[in-house]
Amino acid sequence: MRSYLSEFVGTALLLAIVAGSGLMGESLAAGNAAVALLGNSIATGAGLYALIVLLGPISGAHFNPVVSLMFWKLGHLDFKKMLAYWGCQFTGAIAGIWLTHLMFSLPIIQESTKVRTGLGIWISEFVSTLVLLSVIHIGDQKVKDRVPMLVALTVTAGYWFTSSTFFANPAVAVARSLTNTFVGIAPNDVFGFVLAEILAALVMVGLFCRSKR
Amino acid sequence: MRSYLSEFVGTALLLAIVAGSGLMGESLAAGNAAVALLGNSIATGAGLYALIVLLGPISGAHFNPVVSLMFWKLGHLDFKKMLAYWGCQFTGAIAGIWLTHLMFSLPIIQESTKVRTGLGIWISEFVSTLVLLSVIHIGDQKVKDRVPMLVALTVTAGYWFTSSTFFANPAVAVARSLTNTFVGIAPNDVFGFVLAEILAALVMVGLFCRSKR
Amino acid sequence: MRSYLSEFVGTALLLAIVAGSGLMGESLAAGNAAVALLGNSIATGAGLYALIVLLGPISGAHFNPVVSLMFWKLGHLDFKKMLAYWGCQFTGAIAGIWLTHLMFSLPIIQESTKVRTGLGIWISEFVSTLVLLSVIHIGDQKVKDRVPMLVALTVTAGYWFTSSTFFANPAVAVARSLTNTFVGIAPNDVFGFVLAEILAALVMVGLFCRSKR
Amino acid sequence: MRSYLSEFVGTALLLAIVAGSGLMGESLAAGNAAVALLGNSIATGAGLYALIVLLGPISGAHFNPVVSLMFWKLGHLDFKKMLAYWGCQFTGAIAGIWLTHLMFSLPIIQESTKVRTGLGIWISEFVSTLVLLSVIHIGDQKVKDRVPMLVALTVTAGYWFTSSTFFANPAVAVARSLTNTFVGIAPNDVFGFVLAEILAALVMVGLFCRSKR
Repeated sequence: MRSYLSEFVGTALLLAIVAGSGLMGESLAAGNAAVALLGNSIATGAGLYALIVLLGPISGAHFNPVVSLMFWKLGHLDFKKMLAYWGCQFTGAIAGIWLTHLMFSLPIIQESTKVRTGLGIWISEFVSTLVLLSVIHIGDQKVKDRVPMLVALTVTAGYWFTSSTFFANPAVAVARSLTNTFVGIAPNDVFGFVLAEILAALVMVGLFCRSKR
Repeated sequence: MRSYLSEFVGTALLLAIVAGSGLMGESLAAGNAAVALLGNSIATGAGLYALIVLLGPISGAHFNPVVSLMFWKLGHLDFKKMLAYWGCQFTGAIAGIWLTHLMFSLPIIQESTKVRTGLGIWISEFVSTLVLLSVIHIGDQKVKDRVPMLVALTVTAGYWFTSSTFFANPAVAVARSLTNTFVGIAPNDVFGFVLAEILAALVMVGLFCRSKR
Repeated sequence: MRSYLSEFVGTALLLAIVAGSGLMGESLAAGNAAVALLGNSIATGAGLYALIVLLGPISGAHFNPVVSLMFWKLGHLDFKKMLAYWGCQFTGAIAGIWLTHLMFSLPIIQESTKVRTGLGIWISEFVSTLVLLSVIHIGDQKVKDRVPMLVALTVTAGYWFTSSTFFANPAVAVARSLTNTFVGIAPNDVFGFVLAEILAALVMVGLFCRSKR
Repeated sequence: MRSYLSEFVGTALLLAIVAGSGLMGESLAAGNAAVALLGNSIATGAGLYALIVLLGPISGAHFNPVVSLMFWKLGHLDFKKMLAYWGCQFTGAIAGIWLTHLMFSLPIIQESTKVRTGLGIWISEFVSTLVLLSVIHIGDQKVKDRVPMLVALTVTAGYWFTSSTFFANPAVAVARSLTNTFVGIAPNDVFGFVLAEILAALVMVGLFCRSKR
């Protein structure tokens, strides 16, 4: 039970950090979106570090369905628990978006109109997910105590060097379609992101992990 | 005695960092408040890390009445010492604001006119305090040597993802009403902040801490 | 084989981070190149830290022909392996640039028109390379586990304090001539950069390393 | 001899980082001085961390006459060596400024016209020096391996929260009078800075250090 709560709360706070800092940046940056992205990427990296350090010992701090998928294939998580994690992650992510709207006095229910589509962006999202899963997998095996910093800095960098801004997370993609702010993604474009993410997860699992199953 | 001095000086420097970096950012940022917030949040995180590492071994580096309240309920601080800490924290916080005004050649005695009120902001401040106390409490139990970095990065992220900009500290709220600069809060609005903070502290203590009393 | 793959992939991702974050910064910064450089330098430092921590145990995480040259002179790498590393680094760097163009839906084959020449810039590039090699060499001997952070922060600072923006890497110089974006360098100017880098490497090796050969 | 070289080179590189990043920021920031200060403060903190980690084991990485003065009073440095350190620090600092001008193709010999004077700024500089020496002294006794990070983050924060922008170093104050760029200080104003710094050093030594002499 504690591990499910940890995945729910962790994913919710992750989304609150992502969406809230994007919102704050956009509203203050006087049209300079790079300044907004600086605040967004620094806040996300900083918050993610704290979440992984604190909740890692409780639930593994996945906060991400494809991470749970990878750990299931690696034999670190059983199938039922993976499904339950997915439930916590998707509902947590949406709760985090709604909490952000609540804190910023915006309508709770929104739908993004931001277009994020095209071959370049799908390739970018595929690369993002492959990078994230590799960082977690290699880090976990070799430098476990540095994984929180590795993941945090990878995401901070990822916001900048990929055209898709490194979602790398189906729960994040779905939840971000529910906010019409800086970090939003039009619902129609979520499918492409999730497909690219799942494809990357399958490649990762197929090629690089000696599956325990 | 050394622990009281540590709480006084630490809270004073914390407020000097918060207010001074806000002031510097606002005065240089040519109207781009997101740039000011970047300086403000990076400086606060950086300074807070140093203060907690250095003064933690002396007084615990609370710098925050609700943190002291939590540690009292947890049995780590006796009641009289908590009251004395409160005195050091409130007077230290105000001294830090005044020191900032002195350094920037501004009138020492000021009163903020910045409105920070409304349900969204109160919820934000409640969430901020709950997050801060959870980070400190969980961190303290499991990864004690990482607490300074955890708290610093949490606050840096908090400035960005909450609409109240993560005061999470009644001494900070009171002291910031005494500066009419970037980080100010109108005196009338302090009450709502402090109430939200105390409420969060009570929830934290009630639900999550197995009290030693 | 794994070490060659590591050098290829690591150098490719390094260039993707460098070029991608520069591109993102430039396109969002509304003409404020210092904001673009902030994103560029923070992303590069963050990403480089992750790459060195994760790939260091596999190949040494050189990602840089002059670093491999130094380690060959120090007796840590045999001559044939150095040549193979060079191949991986140059091809990896170019692949990273092309991956970036692919992700951002730009023409894959480009040629930079950005002029980077002059005595000051050559001196800057000489100093950059000397600093980078010294950091790696001294760090490697005395504080091996801090080398990833040292190199990452040195590069982040280097982007700011040198007029050449701290290429310090012949593979990077060549690859960056193939992108007409923020981080590009006109092909004609590559020669001066590479010469300054090799000169610094020779000085480093000659003066400071007690060669094992 | 190696320790003198270390103080000379370290102070030179420190000044090159301070002045170079200030120059780069100012020239790119399109008039937004807060963006320039972000680059300046992040680069200085990042570079200082590397310098202290690498040169600390060789010379103590003082790079600062009042730090050497404090360590002499504490009995960690003999009087003659302190004088020699002072020589290395002042000449190194000036060499660093000149190297920066060389790299940026500016006239080598310059004189700043930037006014930095007034009671507020002197108090700020006194506080800055007191803070820096306290961080070094307390850190050195209790958390020696964290001192590089502590000093780096203190200086990054200090650039933002003090009106004098945290020189806290007589060699830095003198050398910065020799550059008419972002970080300059008019020669006439150097005296006030150095006086405030020495005063803080004396207070520090008198009140807080149990002198070994």
